[in-house]
Amino acid sequence: MTTIGILVNKGKPKARVVLRELVRLLESRGAGVLIETDIAKEIGRQGLGVHLEQIPKRVDIVFVLGGDGTLLGVARQFASYPIPILGFNLGHLGFLSEAEPDSLAMAVDRVLAGDYYIEERIMLDAEVDRDGEVLEKSIALNDVGIAKGSFSRMITGTIYMDGVYLGTYSGDGVIVSTPTGSTAYSLSCGGPIVWPGVQSLLLTPICPHTLTSRPMVLPSDCLLEIRVSATHRDIGLTIDGQLGFRLKVDDVIRIRTSDSITSLIKWKERSFFEVVRKKLQGEQEEGQGLEGRK
Amino acid sequence: MTTIGILVNKGKPKARVVLRELVRLLESRGAGVLIETDIAKEIGRQGLGVHLEQIPKRVDIVFVLGGDGTLLGVARQFASYPIPILGFNLGHLGFLSEAEPDSLAMAVDRVLAGDYYIEERIMLDAEVDRDGEVLEKSIALNDVGIAKGSFSRMITGTIYMDGVYLGTYSGDGVIVSTPTGSTAYSLSCGGPIVWPGVQSLLLTPICPHTLTSRPMVLPSDCLLEIRVSATHRDIGLTIDGQLGFRLKVDDVIRIRTSDSITSLIKWKERSFFEVVRKKLQGEQEEGQGLEGRK
Amino acid sequence: MTTIGILVNKGKPKARVVLRELVRLLESRGAGVLIETDIAKEIGRQGLGVHLEQIPKRVDIVFVLGGDGTLLGVARQFASYPIPILGFNLGHLGFLSEAEPDSLAMAVDRVLAGDYYIEERIMLDAEVDRDGEVLEKSIALNDVGIAKGSFSRMITGTIYMDGVYLGTYSGDGVIVSTPTGSTAYSLSCGGPIVWPGVQSLLLTPICPHTLTSRPMVLPSDCLLEIRVSATHRDIGLTIDGQLGFRLKVDDVIRIRTSDSITSLIKWKERSFFEVVRKKLQGEQEEGQGLEGRK
Amino acid sequence: MTTIGILVNKGKPKARVVLRELVRLLESRGAGVLIETDIAKEIGRQGLGVHLEQIPKRVDIVFVLGGDGTLLGVARQFASYPIPILGFNLGHLGFLSEAEPDSLAMAVDRVLAGDYYIEERIMLDAEVDRDGEVLEKSIALNDVGIAKGSFSRMITGTIYMDGVYLGTYSGDGVIVSTPTGSTAYSLSCGGPIVWPGVQSLLLTPICPHTLTSRPMVLPSDCLLEIRVSATHRDIGLTIDGQLGFRLKVDDVIRIRTSDSITSLIKWKERSFFEVVRKKLQGEQEEGQGLEGRK
Repeated sequence: MTTIGILVNKGKPKARVVLRELVRLLESRGAGVLIETDIAKEIGRQGLGVHLEQIPKRVDIVFVLGGDGTLLGVARQFASYPIPILGFNLGHLGFLSEAEPDSLAMAVDRVLAGDYYIEERIMLDAEVDRDGEVLEKSIALNDVGIAKGSFSRMITGTIYMDGVYLGTYSGDGVIVSTPTGSTAYSLSCGGPIVWPGVQSLLLTPICPHTLTSRPMVLPSDCLLEIRVSATHRDIGLTIDGQLGFRLKVDDVIRIRTSDSITSLIKWKERSFFEVVRKKLQGEQEEGQGLEGRK
Repeated sequence: MTTIGILVNKGKPKARVVLRELVRLLESRGAGVLIETDIAKEIGRQGLGVHLEQIPKRVDIVFVLGGDGTLLGVARQFASYPIPILGFNLGHLGFLSEAEPDSLAMAVDRVLAGDYYIEERIMLDAEVDRDGEVLEKSIALNDVGIAKGSFSRMITGTIYMDGVYLGTYSGDGVIVSTPTGSTAYSLSCGGPIVWPGVQSLLLTPICPHTLTSRPMVLPSDCLLEIRVSATHRDIGLTIDGQLGFRLKVDDVIRIRTSDSITSLIKWKERSFFEVVRKKLQGEQEEGQGLEGRK
Repeated sequence: MTTIGILVNKGKPKARVVLRELVRLLESRGAGVLIETDIAKEIGRQGLGVHLEQIPKRVDIVFVLGGDGTLLGVARQFASYPIPILGFNLGHLGFLSEAEPDSLAMAVDRVLAGDYYIEERIMLDAEVDRDGEVLEKSIALNDVGIAKGSFSRMITGTIYMDGVYLGTYSGDGVIVSTPTGSTAYSLSCGGPIVWPGVQSLLLTPICPHTLTSRPMVLPSDCLLEIRVSATHRDIGLTIDGQLGFRLKVDDVIRIRTSDSITSLIKWKERSFFEVVRKKLQGEQEEGQGLEGRK
Repeated sequence: MTTIGILVNKGKPKARVVLRELVRLLESRGAGVLIETDIAKEIGRQGLGVHLEQIPKRVDIVFVLGGDGTLLGVARQFASYPIPILGFNLGHLGFLSEAEPDSLAMAVDRVLAGDYYIEERIMLDAEVDRDGEVLEKSIALNDVGIAKGSFSRMITGTIYMDGVYLGTYSGDGVIVSTPTGSTAYSLSCGGPIVWPGVQSLLLTPICPHTLTSRPMVLPSDCLLEIRVSATHRDIGLTIDGQLGFRLKVDDVIRIRTSDSITSLIKWKERSFFEVVRKKLQGEQEEGQGLEGRK
């Protein structure tokens, strides 16, 4: 019997409606379902409730109801378990969430029939070294950002790759991102879109002072070390734009590709660029010419 | 008799050396000199010392020894006095400082002979309105920045121009800059270089979420109002990258061209683009071809 | 009696339908109408036909049926006549065309009642000087482009402003544009959006070899001279992206703000940014938040 | 006995001086030398002359005297032979040429001692399909560009990846580049810098009409097909910015990673980013802070 764990964005009212329907569909097809205790209670199905930490140990597949943000959090939390994740998109079109809430039965049937692709996404291990001691460790699916606060004028990061000096970036900060994160914050900072399968890390300066500082696509097997200097105190490390840690001058942030990966369930082998087209280029149809430039 | 006020960047040791030499040169030519009390004491010329606030009331011209950053501060402090300012550049080549410390006598002679141009630079008045009350007022020579803190994910600014809805920018923030400020933070964010004489304000998004949000050059006689919204608390207002004020959600920042201006002393009518060429394009000489693109 | 000249994009079938309806509406309200001889014949109204060159001499207002491209051509042709132009947009939303074909009666009534704003747009005079002789003269509403051909590797332009050396741009070429042209080719090359009323010229490098070459906003009263050098033969001058002229190495292109202007009829004082919002930002409504960045 | 083939940029006078010295050094160390017949005659060493086509068949290593442009040509010509190439840089600092003319003896000694690294660079196979017939085939080390001519307004490329629709780019054209080519034309068009070892192709739009069209990093094992459409005739295909071919509307350009590679001789394992730093960031030394942003 296939057991599905379902995680929900508790802030989205629609999530409970979709959750109830998914539970009904899964049970009607004989699948097991586990959900978090509090949500199980809320929908009157206490019997399905387990503690969050139990879920990855007892399920075959995880459904995430929310948006890309919710899925990022789940991917980090379950990173050490090789469980495929299927995102149900309850808001805007997302890059990570494949299923739409208006075709839940189809999604359930395909998943239970094994009729899907697995897209493996690399993750990042990040740690903060202060005076030789590792203070903080985290995993990221999208990106690790090192950025100045709202009042700081500029921070400087000296960057080493496998111990070799790579360059010095001055400005608002730098982002190290996976291909998955290339469509997130890095894109706003001028970075390229990186196809999920390209084995690489993306190093993108944020509003660099030096106009010649440009995004760089680096090999995924490298170790990046960034030493932070700044005249102001307010420097932060951010994981997937969701978790924060306050940095000090001379902290060294070490970032490398993690041994853990995120396995995303996809209907098609190449749904990525369909999303790119829809999100970034406004749903043009194939072959349709763009408006003439004057 | 011409009286010169001299302000120095107290953090630069070189400033005292240049100060002594300038005092000597000015006195030898019969000019009056006023300096801040503490600095006057330091160089053993207590007789020249006055309180900072007295300086703009009693001098004809101000010399600033430091860099563009020092000059920005003086320009804001003396904004209500129509006194020409000559910057002496003690560090890197600057956009605002015209005089070099290795030709002090030349500078003194030209200033006393009136052999210079005045370049008038517009300034910005900014105020923060919280619940209908003006909390904070400031003047800026370069720019007014509204930016997220290091942990915030994104802020949104809804922008009105003369009361008409102009657009909504989501991302790290926005900068409103004068032409003078176009070569500062705005340039790092992808803004254009604006020639000092062009009557305009520059509205530059900082790492905008929407790829179509672009820098805009607006008429200098408009009133910009920016209403801030954000899911996180950490939003800051920055004046010339030097002064900070913490903002709250729903604060309205009002920015318009000030009645005050900064009058810069320049040796040549168009030294601006010489600095642009030197700083941004690496001191190419006229007519010299660039390296062939492969 | 008000006389209206109507010019049409002959390639758009819809133009004839709209033309007939406009003629009917105008005549029913007692206005005079003049159209080009061949089009007049086509719609069976030979009596309204005159030669194109007669139109600006005999009408009070010109209607243009087509798109921004059609209007650019009419603006250049009628540049020496101070006649207001109203564009009827038969295709995509445009920056210059104010009227929509589904509200023709409203447009006719407002025009005949004088219920509109005039937005004056500056134009550019461009001339090509080869060995001291002026070979070619043209006027532009959007821009003057100097660009390499498809096989050329790179061209270099040495640029002078009012006779003073401004800089050297190497790459695919440069664009000099009016504020009107800032939303056209220059925007694709990274230039800012310039509000119509800002008195300025925009100098935008096309794919510059030097990463520090940036768009510049210059005073509208300056004379720009661009001397072209290249190792390949294929260099072209383009007016509004519509007219072309083949350049040679050492040609000097002189560009300045024209004495002629284009007067556009607008329904609202500030329709410009509404179009910017709709075209560039996908018709967001005021106050609507953008999608959360992950 | 090691035999070295030496190719020179015939247009650079300095090349002959360096050539003579290299021949002397190589012969003094017992190495064989082959050069092109005409150059052999010019320097009075007819005995070393062979036809260009013989060189790759008879040598162990190729020296290229010129610059990156010369090396690009040699790399294409010798692509089917697995011969390491060492570039001697006679002009500006280059990305491909490792040896400097002022340390020829060192270079010769290291090469003959096998004291170097080989950096393998992927190449591109490009072919033009017109009406089902392959008209033109070429190999590229840097990039394949498809671009409009100087008078054309815009071209549109419909792009397929492994037969799946990827997107439509409208603008001045597109570039498909290797990591090696990422620092060439693509960089001028806003593309990222791609580390040589990252297995990827870079697809960079040239001045795209749609602001959301962004550079994309794609897997190196994909097949790209670009179907060209345009209203004007003047569209060109360019190989490494050096070879050109005139395209027609509806031509399909097929681009994929070649089976051939270029093997570059490098002194250090990671000289690439040293060049990036020197060329793009103006020779900053490690740890040196950048100038403070105002």
